[in-house]
Amino acid sequence: MRYVLGIDIGGTSFTIGSVAADGSRAAVLLNAPTLPGGGADDVVARIVALSREVMRRTAEVEPGATCLGVGIGAPGPLDTERGIVHLTPNLGWVNFPLRDRIEAGLGLPAALDNDANCAILGEWWMGAARGTRHALGITIGTGIGGGIILDGRLYHGASDCAGEIGHASIDSNGRRCKCGNDGCLEAYASGPAIARRAVEAIEAGAESSLPARAGGRLDEITAQTVYEAAHAGDELAREIVGDTARFLGSGLANLLNIFNPEVVVVCGGVTGAGDLLFHPLRREVARRAFKPAVAACRILPGELEAPGVHGAALAFLHARGADA
Amino acid sequence: MRYVLGIDIGGTSFTIGSVAADGSRAAVLLNAPTLPGGGADDVVARIVALSREVMRRTAEVEPGATCLGVGIGAPGPLDTERGIVHLTPNLGWVNFPLRDRIEAGLGLPAALDNDANCAILGEWWMGAARGTRHALGITIGTGIGGGIILDGRLYHGASDCAGEIGHASIDSNGRRCKCGNDGCLEAYASGPAIARRAVEAIEAGAESSLPARAGGRLDEITAQTVYEAAHAGDELAREIVGDTARFLGSGLANLLNIFNPEVVVVCGGVTGAGDLLFHPLRREVARRAFKPAVAACRILPGELEAPGVHGAALAFLHARGADA
Repeated sequence: MRYVLGIDIGGTSFTIGSVAADGSRAAVLLNAPTLPGGGADDVVARIVALSREVMRRTAEVEPGATCLGVGIGAPGPLDTERGIVHLTPNLGWVNFPLRDRIEAGLGLPAALDNDANCAILGEWWMGAARGTRHALGITIGTGIGGGIILDGRLYHGASDCAGEIGHASIDSNGRRCKCGNDGCLEAYASGPAIARRAVEAIEAGAESSLPARAGGRLDEITAQTVYEAAHAGDELAREIVGDTARFLGSGLANLLNIFNPEVVVVCGGVTGAGDLLFHPLRREVARRAFKPAVAACRILPGELEAPGVHGAALAFLHARGADA
Repeated sequence: MRYVLGIDIGGTSFTIGSVAADGSRAAVLLNAPTLPGGGADDVVARIVALSREVMRRTAEVEPGATCLGVGIGAPGPLDTERGIVHLTPNLGWVNFPLRDRIEAGLGLPAALDNDANCAILGEWWMGAARGTRHALGITIGTGIGGGIILDGRLYHGASDCAGEIGHASIDSNGRRCKCGNDGCLEAYASGPAIARRAVEAIEAGAESSLPARAGGRLDEITAQTVYEAAHAGDELAREIVGDTARFLGSGLANLLNIFNPEVVVVCGGVTGAGDLLFHPLRREVARRAFKPAVAACRILPGELEAPGVHGAALAFLHARGADA
């Protein structure tokens, strides 16, 4: 097997896998906590160590396997060409030459791209968006990230900051977002925003099983708690999920009118809400967007366990001019 | 001179020009009313007649000039590959094979694209966006159209309906748009929407020179009246233009965060508002969008008299696989 290491770095953990260069499978997939407290050098050392472990185990299950290189998906504004992460507050990185550091640590060529870009690239290669030309990804977690695939390639924009779908506003006079803009989709539909809307409703007197599920502590309510309560039939939780679908639907309808994509893949914990989210989401998009754009586009949950790992691997192949 | 005929078809008039194939200039540019009342056949006959007139005059000013073909920019959802206009209510066209009809009428190969696409393509070729890779166009008139150029090519989407920037919502609970969505940019910042906001303010008691400028008839107030009054110092008109800048700024900030383009070109009558519009517009975009996206992008008024004619000509060259 010829394979590429895919590295997906998050604020709380990183995941590394050995992905077959033909996109057929991931042989080994390991995860470790990021532990940013030890500083940038420590994080790099731990990424390198886990990469070696993945390579060792890959050689066990695929004797004679050769590693072509390393794709890295990282958060934050970054420079794909120079391999530099400009700023990642959670990890304390400022203009950090992540690609070169990992190249040096592993003695393998590497490429760097944005984590949300890698997620949709992975889904496009091996998951929900495979077989399409134009695909959008929206990854919902602590924030909302986006990735744009046009004609089978990631679109990066003029300075590598295209795809900030979470910071397209759905209400120009709406909730202040931490980015400084008003009414960003992220301010309504990120994981923390979903939890916050539930807590606001409870504080305003709504009845719900959510406080009991969180041991009576409102600040322990997460988006996951809301999805679980919604599946169990909690009225407020269902309302919060329905509102989430409408907010996301507003944002996605705009993207359908702008991009006319074949597929939008929704990744991240929010997919745990299942049909309770996706049914009203598709309805809202159909109500708002142009009919030909709606007819052309499927809205699907992501399929892969670690889309960012697969996408990082493909980002490496694309950066090296190799078609997978 | 080798040239391409560029045809820009609007609801009230059409413009035809002979555009040098190297993009250096338009030799002849003529305009005629569309007069849709005579039916589709009549409109095609009149387009063909004016095209022949442009060719005749071009031969006068450029002896020996040869016409390579015809690019057509038309409103409405259309099929660029089959050359069909799906629906143009103003012109009464339904699934009309416009490209083939004009090919047959002129005996020249032709290509069809969307009018707003042609506008930005023209500005990219010979106007405000020249020399860029990634450019967005927004054309503000009776409606708001958009065009997307990525890597020097028009982006059409999965079914030729990408770029509907005017129907990206800036307020998901906002003004109902005639497309069925709520809060579309077009519902706030199109020519008629600008006039309507002025009239609403006057009806609510605001003092202004606008009624007098329109001969006392509020329904005669147009966006143009508002720009003229604003330049003359009318307070209400300036407020309306300032609000227009903020609405547009909200929409363009979203596009900067999504596309990270090098330039956004604003075309159409709204550019008549000049710095009264562009200064607060750029401020609003800078306030809302990510700094790296703002730093990478200029926001400029269109430069060309007939961008749609130039762009239609280039659309023909691109469709034929010829680089200008």
